Amino acid sequence: MNVISRPQTFTVTSGPLPASRKIYLNGTAHTDVRVAMREIEVAGGKEPPVVVYDTSGPYSDPAITTDIRLGLAPLRTAWIKARGDVEEIAGRAARPEDDGLKAGEANDVPKFDRAGRKPLKGKPGRTVTQLAYARAGIITPEMEYIAIRENRGRAEAAAKAPRDGESFGASIPEFVTPEFVRDEVARGRAIIPANINHPEAEPMIIGRNFLVKINANIGNSAVTSSVAEEVDKLVWAIRWGGDTVMDLSTGRNIHTIREWILRNAPVPIGTVPIYQALEKVNGKAEDLTWEIFRDTLIEQAEQGVDYFTIHAGVRLAYIPLTAKRVTGIVSRGGSIMAKWCLAHHKENFLYPHFDEICEIMKAYDVSFSLGDGLRPGSGADANDAAQFAELETLGELTQIAWKHDVQVMIEGPGHVPMHKIKENMDKQLAVCGEAPFYTLGPLTTDIAPGYDHITSAIGAAMIGWFGTAMLCYVTPKEHLGLPDRDDVKAGVITYKIAAHAADLAKGHPGAAARDAALSKARFEFRWRDQFNLSLDPETAEDFHDQTLPAEGAKVAHFCSMCGPKFCSMKISQEVREYAEKGMAEMSDTFKSGGGEIYRKLEATAEKV
Amino acid sequence: MNVISRPQTFTVTSGPLPASRKIYLNGTAHTDVRVAMREIEVAGGKEPPVVVYDTSGPYSDPAITTDIRLGLAPLRTAWIKARGDVEEIAGRAARPEDDGLKAGEANDVPKFDRAGRKPLKGKPGRTVTQLAYARAGIITPEMEYIAIRENRGRAEAAAKAPRDGESFGASIPEFVTPEFVRDEVARGRAIIPANINHPEAEPMIIGRNFLVKINANIGNSAVTSSVAEEVDKLVWAIRWGGDTVMDLSTGRNIHTIREWILRNAPVPIGTVPIYQALEKVNGKAEDLTWEIFRDTLIEQAEQGVDYFTIHAGVRLAYIPLTAKRVTGIVSRGGSIMAKWCLAHHKENFLYPHFDEICEIMKAYDVSFSLGDGLRPGSGADANDAAQFAELETLGELTQIAWKHDVQVMIEGPGHVPMHKIKENMDKQLAVCGEAPFYTLGPLTTDIAPGYDHITSAIGAAMIGWFGTAMLCYVTPKEHLGLPDRDDVKAGVITYKIAAHAADLAKGHPGAAARDAALSKARFEFRWRDQFNLSLDPETAEDFHDQTLPAEGAKVAHFCSMCGPKFCSMKISQEVREYAEKGMAEMSDTFKSGGGEIYRKLEATAEKV
Repeated sequence: MNVISRPQTFTVTSGPLPASRKIYLNGTAHTDVRVAMREIEVAGGKEPPVVVYDTSGPYSDPAITTDIRLGLAPLRTAWIKARGDVEEIAGRAARPEDDGLKAGEANDVPKFDRAGRKPLKGKPGRTVTQLAYARAGIITPEMEYIAIRENRGRAEAAAKAPRDGESFGASIPEFVTPEFVRDEVARGRAIIPANINHPEAEPMIIGRNFLVKINANIGNSAVTSSVAEEVDKLVWAIRWGGDTVMDLSTGRNIHTIREWILRNAPVPIGTVPIYQALEKVNGKAEDLTWEIFRDTLIEQAEQGVDYFTIHAGVRLAYIPLTAKRVTGIVSRGGSIMAKWCLAHHKENFLYPHFDEICEIMKAYDVSFSLGDGLRPGSGADANDAAQFAELETLGELTQIAWKHDVQVMIEGPGHVPMHKIKENMDKQLAVCGEAPFYTLGPLTTDIAPGYDHITSAIGAAMIGWFGTAMLCYVTPKEHLGLPDRDDVKAGVITYKIAAHAADLAKGHPGAAARDAALSKARFEFRWRDQFNLSLDPETAEDFHDQTLPAEGAKVAHFCSMCGPKFCSMKISQEVREYAEKGMAEMSDTFKSGGGEIYRKLEATAEKV
Repeated sequence: MNVISRPQTFTVTSGPLPASRKIYLNGTAHTDVRVAMREIEVAGGKEPPVVVYDTSGPYSDPAITTDIRLGLAPLRTAWIKARGDVEEIAGRAARPEDDGLKAGEANDVPKFDRAGRKPLKGKPGRTVTQLAYARAGIITPEMEYIAIRENRGRAEAAAKAPRDGESFGASIPEFVTPEFVRDEVARGRAIIPANINHPEAEPMIIGRNFLVKINANIGNSAVTSSVAEEVDKLVWAIRWGGDTVMDLSTGRNIHTIREWILRNAPVPIGTVPIYQALEKVNGKAEDLTWEIFRDTLIEQAEQGVDYFTIHAGVRLAYIPLTAKRVTGIVSRGGSIMAKWCLAHHKENFLYPHFDEICEIMKAYDVSFSLGDGLRPGSGADANDAAQFAELETLGELTQIAWKHDVQVMIEGPGHVPMHKIKENMDKQLAVCGEAPFYTLGPLTTDIAPGYDHITSAIGAAMIGWFGTAMLCYVTPKEHLGLPDRDDVKAGVITYKIAAHAADLAKGHPGAAARDAALSKARFEFRWRDQFNLSLDPETAEDFHDQTLPAEGAKVAHFCSMCGPKFCSMKISQEVREYAEKGMAEMSDTFKSGGGEIYRKLEATAEKV
């Protein structure tokens, strides 16, 4: 292998978040399952700690030394091999064109050293997907891991709190059992993106009856490219809460960058294989062939990509439906396939080859993310004939994938004004057999470039509430440029807000615990706890310190907003003490009042 | 008057926004009505210009020289005087304690020179409110101004486009006539905050059947204070779209700062008079009296404050309802009144004096913003007994205000998870007689200090859609510190997004025009137009330039996101040309297909 002796310097942000420590919860059916969670200390231990879902992987555990050049430990390898249905293969030989190079041209980025690790593949005739296992009644270690992870350290006994929410027909359990995970996967209502060649990934689930997940897109483009930058963005995105990451690279070194990302990713990685296929034909969509696409699928499946966006629903017949749109086709993959269709005046080759695609994916457990190539690029185009025609086709393709025991989620939205969002969700549920929905935003207005993380957070929170299982983030750079590190963080935090708002509104059990702990800290002027419990402790503390920087101000019973005299929280605490004292004193009056207690008091007071 | 000869240097941002010019539309019934609008040039004039609602006042008109020391021209004085129902009064003498000073202590900020202008007051027995005029069947110049403004330059004939939206029972007209404005005001469904002593303000309306408005809070606190800073924030807030501004100052110089703000404000100004009253009793809530409060109302009414937040609904009997809350009482005004109530064990003095308050307000046309002193400060406290008990009282007070012909809006939300938002709106409509709702956020989760503009934009967009007439912004500094200039802009732009998303979802006629123009520009790679049509042209251009700074890139048919090869927009344009050509060629086939045209084509294609 062509390993460059002194690779680029990798700097990724590691170490725990403030007041946080990594804890590991053990499986019972599978005793080698150790689920990583983050525990936030509160009030120096005087209040119960808050355990939160943790996507950051080993990078935030100070007990683990990570080295980007070696990659992460392959957490799942033993589980995968223990199933006895996979075998090592020689794998497809790497070619210069995989990296957009000419024959003989050297890589201009270092290669990752796999240290001899060979790709795995399902043995002939074996389907190695979590869906196949689930349907066979098998609870995999991945499923137990997920059950523990979704409960976020809540004890089953504690899961009896009254429910408060509107789930629009979802079936969210009080407590997630491994059997529930299995059942949801078996029904196709949830997926576990877990390529057997990506054993570094910690199992996670995407489904309407689980916590809402978010995806962060990274990737270089023809304009800018660096391995170190992309790996850094990956680690940064998951530090703040990215549940999966899509590598949308389109430039040179695409294969090599992907390898670095996969080997260092504790979260599932998705790609859009048509991007690389297009590189292989020098960007000429009309030169794409099924053979080149197929080869790319195998290349990426062997590397370990966990889900593929495949635009098989962009059918020839739907393309004229986009001709009168304000913004035509705005999905890159969709526009590539549309161009191919028109150039050949033939059906999109992905459609007739869909069974063959399933055959490939079932041998590695790559999940489908059925691409919405015709998603609306402006509010004016929302919910139009093109969008919904494609969605119906995606429903049809879902059934084919399920026949093959291949896991499926469905991509959706784009630009959709608020009043049309629920229609999208309801239609997806109706035509896609409850396969998980995975939506970009939606953006609820077109007029705020530079703020599309916000225009889309509005739509994302709503569609998440209505039933979308995973929200694809939008960064402030949307429509304008490639996200940098700050944009990635802004996008991730914004989408954590949207996903969490959705969990709260759905009435997800235990979802409000962190809110309650932070609010209590706020009310009691425990500033440090307020920062530590927030989604972004650094920014919260920084903003506080801009007006009251002294460390003393962090224990002060007021802040810069009102000053000590006007502090509503401070006055309110006095009110509470007074009210409690007053209520004790007047307990006789209170007791005699029954349900009308306060009305009576009010009547008395009026006369004063 | 104690005018300091060399006052602080005022720098406010003035001049037009990019590609924008100020236009004035003339009234017909009142020919001296000239409504300021902003016209954005598109494609160098090759596309129709887009006319947008303009809150920025004379500051953005290069033809007008503004001077903060002189204040703005009193646009409405002639209209006010022509009604013949007001008279000049000597007015209440200014006192050192108005500015939090001791007797004989000099002001530490310069005073605004009123150049002898005296306060106006309704003649004895006359009610000078827009509500009184509306009920008398009078269409005021203010009402005609508003009708023209709300139509944003759309011709009545053009207002016949098909409606697309869900308004939840609102009565939004195709075209706003002056009579419609009058009728909405007469019904109490909309208010025109327009103190006769604030003639500098351009008339605007707050009501469910009009465009959703936003409010920006400014104001110094005990910790930081400067006249120049607050005036700059005012001009900055309205430049980006603030429809009204609340001065929430609490520190010293509160009277003087307010005077500077009012004289330079082309938008209505709201205040919370109890803040100043509390300053007058050295911050001791229990020392507040009706007399001090009354005196403060008159002081501020004579200065020209357009609406007062008055927490008359925080009744003694409701205070115990907050004792078990996670975050007690978080409204400053609410906590002050609660403390007073408990200290005296008496009913909130604002409640029994409500008729007297109305008597004062009707003599200046100050509108009520009935304060929600018991709004929830955490999701856990949302929609609880305390919040809704107060809301019912606000409904009762609304009826009293209406008896006096005083205009009323109702304050609401705070922290409310998504599934409880609609209940707030519906309850407000039911118990407050459709008086306009004016809500803070709501914040849909508690866990994101530093990002509460976003947590609340989600809730604000939704409640705006459901019927809230004005959204009070939340800045990134919420819960952490006082907003600076950047925070004010972030808050305003974020809330413009929420308000516009609501207008689109309600199906407000013409609301989608700007979205469509921007989207068309985007699709046609008119980068400059995309920036110019956006809510924040500077940020949009800056973000674009971070990856492709060259001026040439602004006409390029691609951007840094995908590069030329992968540009979906570019490919999509080729697709469109191809599709149109193809459709022409195959027109016979197409025509014979009827409704099933594309299905037929699809069937053919499949066989290929």
